Amino acid sequence: MSPSSLTTDRIVLASRPQGAPTAANFRREQAALPDLQPGQVLLRNRYLSLDPYMRGRMEEGPSYAAPVALDAVMEGRTVSEVLASRHDGLEQGALVVASGGWQTHAVVDGAGISRRLQAHGLPLSTALGVHGMPGFTAYAGLQEIGRVQPGETLVVAAASGPVGATVLQLAKQQGARVVGIAGGPDKRAYVETLGADVALDHRADGFAEQLRAAAPGGIDVYFENVGGKVFDAVLPLLNDFARVPVCGTIATYNARGAVLPGPDRLPDFFSQVLRQRLTVRGFIQTDFAALFPSFEAEMAQWLRDGRIQYREDIVDGLEAAPEAFFGLLQGRNFGKLVVKLD
Amino acid sequence: MSPSSLTTDRIVLASRPQGAPTAANFRREQAALPDLQPGQVLLRNRYLSLDPYMRGRMEEGPSYAAPVALDAVMEGRTVSEVLASRHDGLEQGALVVASGGWQTHAVVDGAGISRRLQAHGLPLSTALGVHGMPGFTAYAGLQEIGRVQPGETLVVAAASGPVGATVLQLAKQQGARVVGIAGGPDKRAYVETLGADVALDHRADGFAEQLRAAAPGGIDVYFENVGGKVFDAVLPLLNDFARVPVCGTIATYNARGAVLPGPDRLPDFFSQVLRQRLTVRGFIQTDFAALFPSFEAEMAQWLRDGRIQYREDIVDGLEAAPEAFFGLLQGRNFGKLVVKLD
Repeated sequence: MSPSSLTTDRIVLASRPQGAPTAANFRREQAALPDLQPGQVLLRNRYLSLDPYMRGRMEEGPSYAAPVALDAVMEGRTVSEVLASRHDGLEQGALVVASGGWQTHAVVDGAGISRRLQAHGLPLSTALGVHGMPGFTAYAGLQEIGRVQPGETLVVAAASGPVGATVLQLAKQQGARVVGIAGGPDKRAYVETLGADVALDHRADGFAEQLRAAAPGGIDVYFENVGGKVFDAVLPLLNDFARVPVCGTIATYNARGAVLPGPDRLPDFFSQVLRQRLTVRGFIQTDFAALFPSFEAEMAQWLRDGRIQYREDIVDGLEAAPEAFFGLLQGRNFGKLVVKLD
Repeated sequence: MSPSSLTTDRIVLASRPQGAPTAANFRREQAALPDLQPGQVLLRNRYLSLDPYMRGRMEEGPSYAAPVALDAVMEGRTVSEVLASRHDGLEQGALVVASGGWQTHAVVDGAGISRRLQAHGLPLSTALGVHGMPGFTAYAGLQEIGRVQPGETLVVAAASGPVGATVLQLAKQQGARVVGIAGGPDKRAYVETLGADVALDHRADGFAEQLRAAAPGGIDVYFENVGGKVFDAVLPLLNDFARVPVCGTIATYNARGAVLPGPDRLPDFFSQVLRQRLTVRGFIQTDFAALFPSFEAEMAQWLRDGRIQYREDIVDGLEAAPEAFFGLLQGRNFGKLVVKLD
């Protein structure tokens, strides 16, 4: 099979969103794949991960990664099979996690391969979720920043999602009291099944009062992965020396650049940081890459043992990706959102 | 000399300030001292430290320490001589740093003694400044949070004050490029003599642009001890992985509880924390008490060697304390502000 005979079915960024992204920001097209150069591999993408960070890549402006160029394929992490290889050590048939993008096939070089999958008895899609970037975000953020101690109270939002659900379960393993927050009664009920001491629905009336009641001793760790009104309700409940790992502020992604109404809470926030000796620290999982091998081994074991539960929301076919992504930004998915490309 | 025969000349908190404190918030009076109980010492206060944190103690509301009660003596750290002792190990004539308060004499128990001064060839008043709490705040905040690396850029405000001047010099010792900021041309010139790579006057026209020019590679550590417009100018210049030790936000002390005009910058700030993987951490020097012995020994040596410079602003007599304190909050002092009580 010659790569030059292959085309890829792909979704490109057609325009940059103003506010919430819409279907008009994407375009589906067929494109020829280039010939393989030395060091490159041809991939068949089998699963595509959809994640909140992709919203940031659609924008120009400062971020921890360059934006997707107009008319370029949308970035995304994939579980992929090597169809042809000019890369030493990656033979045809190997399974990898790669920057395969929103498309059926891709040609990438070594930098585009983040991990080779070993046989570990887990479904392939978990390499994009609980056994991949989201699970590792939970593991590393807790270990390096949250450092929850037995008996302390941890609060995590989006607790039915892949990061939050893993944070919740790891914190319980570590002896913490855990309040898990999700949107809607079904997700709230699911969070309860994960072992949360209290599960709350942030859409319920009186949410802030419920959170206060759920954390009578205050909050020692707030794993910040949503922002917005959950953050607002958490802020007055933080204990002295509380830690706030910040790995996502999805509620404000669409407001970027918007001027928010006052009052300006930033100076008071700094006063609180000082008074309470708070630690607020942003991170992405690659900052702690040295921890990945231990995560990969430990998490595989916990999953095989059933000590860590996970839930996936798998949609079928590339054409379903944009609508599924819009739903993700609105919290409509339930579990790790993955597109099956086979 | 019987303690009961002694009175203290003292300044008490007469009322809580609304906005900036005024003379009406204080009252000077004579008061009898109680008899010494077992474990207590009678102190003659020789120097009283005036510090920005005292503004917070005048307020009710949450802080890391209880407020001063109405009609109680204003809290303050002193260098004091033991006049009489019922405390084992503290004999008459011993010199200590104590919570002596805004008064000429005090009866305190062991908890009120923070440190016994050894003979180290330094002026007594330095135990309240460069060789005391402010110097240690600089030392500990840099070592535990700032962790400036050779070649990185550190910015510190109030750089003619005891914390800022020490941060500046320690960061230079550690190989950093340092931008020191102070208010007014005299203080700016003094900051230059301390070895700052660039010294800026935050009152000058075009300050924000000057700061940008002074940090062409961005800012890796911002030692936050003032807040206000210096902070506003620093924020867009922070580099990825920047560290912001927060030990004071003096510019907003008087605004506490005030509703600040919009826009609300807090959500955007959290987006920046995430995008740039910032670390923001509040601390007070007692959080790092385990480091004090090494600080005390190292700093004494650096001071004797002339490797660390310092400047004191010594005012004479207890009656001068309120006005000197108002000046401190407005930046009118020049160097560590100490009241000589002899």
